[in-house]
Amino acid sequence: MEHYTDVRSKSNRTRGLTHTSPIEVSLQAALDALGDPIRRSIVRELAGAPDWARACGTFSHLPVAKSTLSHHFTVLRDAGLLEQRDEGARRLNRLRRAEFDGRFPGLLALVLEEGSAGDGRVPDV
Amino acid sequence: MEHYTDVRSKSNRTRGLTHTSPIEVSLQAALDALGDPIRRSIVRELAGAPDWARACGTFSHLPVAKSTLSHHFTVLRDAGLLEQRDEGARRLNRLRRAEFDGRFPGLLALVLEEGSAGDGRVPDV
Repeated sequence: MEHYTDVRSKSNRTRGLTHTSPIEVSLQAALDALGDPIRRSIVRELAGAPDWARACGTFSHLPVAKSTLSHHFTVLRDAGLLEQRDEGARRLNRLRRAEFDGRFPGLLALVLEEGSAGDGRVPDV
Repeated sequence: MEHYTDVRSKSNRTRGLTHTSPIEVSLQAALDALGDPIRRSIVRELAGAPDWARACGTFSHLPVAKSTLSHHFTVLRDAGLLEQRDEGARRLNRLRRAEFDGRFPGLLALVLEEGSAGDGRVPDV
């Protein structure tokens, strides 16, 4: 676990956010994280935006409760897929694309391709 | 779905076995199938043996009930990972390695590497 508390600049008010490096992630955890269609949607949307451009609040269009969405972000962070930081009231996200790809070559590509190929059906939730 | 009934030689007594081509498999189904550690163990063992060399009965060392093992084989077959045929009392297996790899590049490699890297812990079941 990487504990980012007090590591970043003062403008980063992220306290208590624990990040997991993809290097530490088991295949089981990666498959569990990406086994959920909503989480794959989040990953695809983040891949389509610049780093730190998307706050968690911008995913409210996804068909899940706010608390569930929050859980999905935690699972993704724990699987080494996300880095998060707080700016004011917003929690911003960065997809750890290169790092995750280095740990699990090809896996993220399958998730991104799922969306572009029209293979990623809108989940029934 | 490919219905193999009456397609094979007379020595193949596999009736009622429905096979799914990897081409028809969604990423969700692939991740669901490979999300289970016992199923990944089966896949790895099959990858280490010649096609049709391993009967389902040779997997009884895995720490699950026979009925559960049978279910795992069905899930793998439905996800396009296995081809099966019956010979006498034995149900033989072939890993559809090249076909599955063509559909989901890199995914099987991660599963096989998990075993060789000592990353595939013995599942707690």
